[in-house]
Amino acid sequence: MTKTIELIFDFVSPNAYLVWQPLRELAGRQGAQIQITPAFLGGMHKLTGNAPPFIRDADVKGKNAYANLEMRRFIAKHGLNRFKMHPKFPFNSINLLRMLISLEGDDQIKFIEALMPAIWEEELDVSDVDSVARVLTKAGFDAQSLAAKAQDPAIKQAVIDSTEKAVERGVFGIPTFFIGEEMFFGKERLGQIEEMLEKN
Amino acid sequence: MTKTIELIFDFVSPNAYLVWQPLRELAGRQGAQIQITPAFLGGMHKLTGNAPPFIRDADVKGKNAYANLEMRRFIAKHGLNRFKMHPKFPFNSINLLRMLISLEGDDQIKFIEALMPAIWEEELDVSDVDSVARVLTKAGFDAQSLAAKAQDPAIKQAVIDSTEKAVERGVFGIPTFFIGEEMFFGKERLGQIEEMLEKN
Repeated sequence: MTKTIELIFDFVSPNAYLVWQPLRELAGRQGAQIQITPAFLGGMHKLTGNAPPFIRDADVKGKNAYANLEMRRFIAKHGLNRFKMHPKFPFNSINLLRMLISLEGDDQIKFIEALMPAIWEEELDVSDVDSVARVLTKAGFDAQSLAAKAQDPAIKQAVIDSTEKAVERGVFGIPTFFIGEEMFFGKERLGQIEEMLEKN
Repeated sequence: MTKTIELIFDFVSPNAYLVWQPLRELAGRQGAQIQITPAFLGGMHKLTGNAPPFIRDADVKGKNAYANLEMRRFIAKHGLNRFKMHPKFPFNSINLLRMLISLEGDDQIKFIEALMPAIWEEELDVSDVDSVARVLTKAGFDAQSLAAKAQDPAIKQAVIDSTEKAVERGVFGIPTFFIGEEMFFGKERLGQIEEMLEKN
C-alpha cells in the first residue's frame, strides 16, 4: 500500500510555500504520495476564531521576533533563499483554490508547483487574472478552461465544504498534515512525520 | 571549552518538567552542561503581555486539543509516564525560585531534580512550606537555611532582575534555551539544539 501524506493547503500561507519542497523531498525519501486537500485559510480562520500569527501574537513582546528567527532558520536549513514575503499578503486566494479543487492527483501537484514559486519568489499578483493565466499556460494548463471552472457553483461550494470538513477534523491553520487520522500542524512537524512514515 | 545550554526555568511550567529529563539526556550525549537562569513565569507574562497557551488559545477551535495531542506525543516519545497535570496549576512558584537563585551550579540542578518530580508526579503543594521542606531535607538540603534565604530582599530582587533581563533578551515563555546568543523556545526545539551542539 502506498504511504500517503495528506496536506491541507492554501496558497496564501507563507509556511505552505516554505514546507512544500522539504515535504516533496521527504515524500520522495519515504516513497510516499502527497494528497492535496484545498482549504480556504481565510474561511478557516473565521470558522475557528484563529488569525494569522503575526496578528494574534503582535501583543506579546518577543513572540513575533522569535517566529521570524525560526522562519529564517527554516529557510537557511532547507536552502529556500528565493522566498520573499509577498507585498500583498494576505492576498485573497479563493480563485486559485477553486481552480486547484477542480483538478485531481498529479495535476494538483503540478498546479501548486507552477504557482507557488510565481507567488512566493516572483511576487505574482494573484488578483491579476492575465498574469495568473500566463503562469498556468506556461506550465501546460488550459488557463481559460480553469478560469471557467472556477466560476462553477459546484466548484465554489466544494472549496467551502472542504474547508468546513477540515475544521471538523480539528484543523485550525496551514500547513496541516494527516497521516491516516494522525494530525500534524506546522512546518516544524516534518521530523515527526518522517519518523511516523518510517515506522509504518 | 565546555558546551553550555542555558535554560530559562520556572517550576510552574509543565513543559519545563517534560523537557527536563530529555534535556539532561541530550546534555549527557553532547558533553554539555546545563546552566540555570531562574525566571518567574508569572512576572514574565506581565512584562511581555503573554499568557499560558491554554488561556491564550482557548478561543481558537482545535488549537488546545492539538497542543494536548503534541503533549501526549512528547510524553510517549520520552517515556514520561509519571507526569500528572498539577491540581493547583498555575500555582505560585516565586518562593521556590528565590531558593533556587540562592544556590549555584550543581546545587541548582540538584534542587530542580528534587522538586520537579515531587510537583509534577506527586502533586506537591508548593504553598505548604512543611511539605516543601521535607522534600528538600530528603534531598540533602538545609531546608531552614533555604527558607531564610528566600526572605532576603537581595534574593527577592535577584529573581525580579533575572526575569527582567530574560525578557530584555527576547524571552516570552518557558522553557527557553540559549546556546550562546542563539535562542530556542519550547520543548519542540531539542532537535535543533542538539544539531547546533553537534556543529560546535
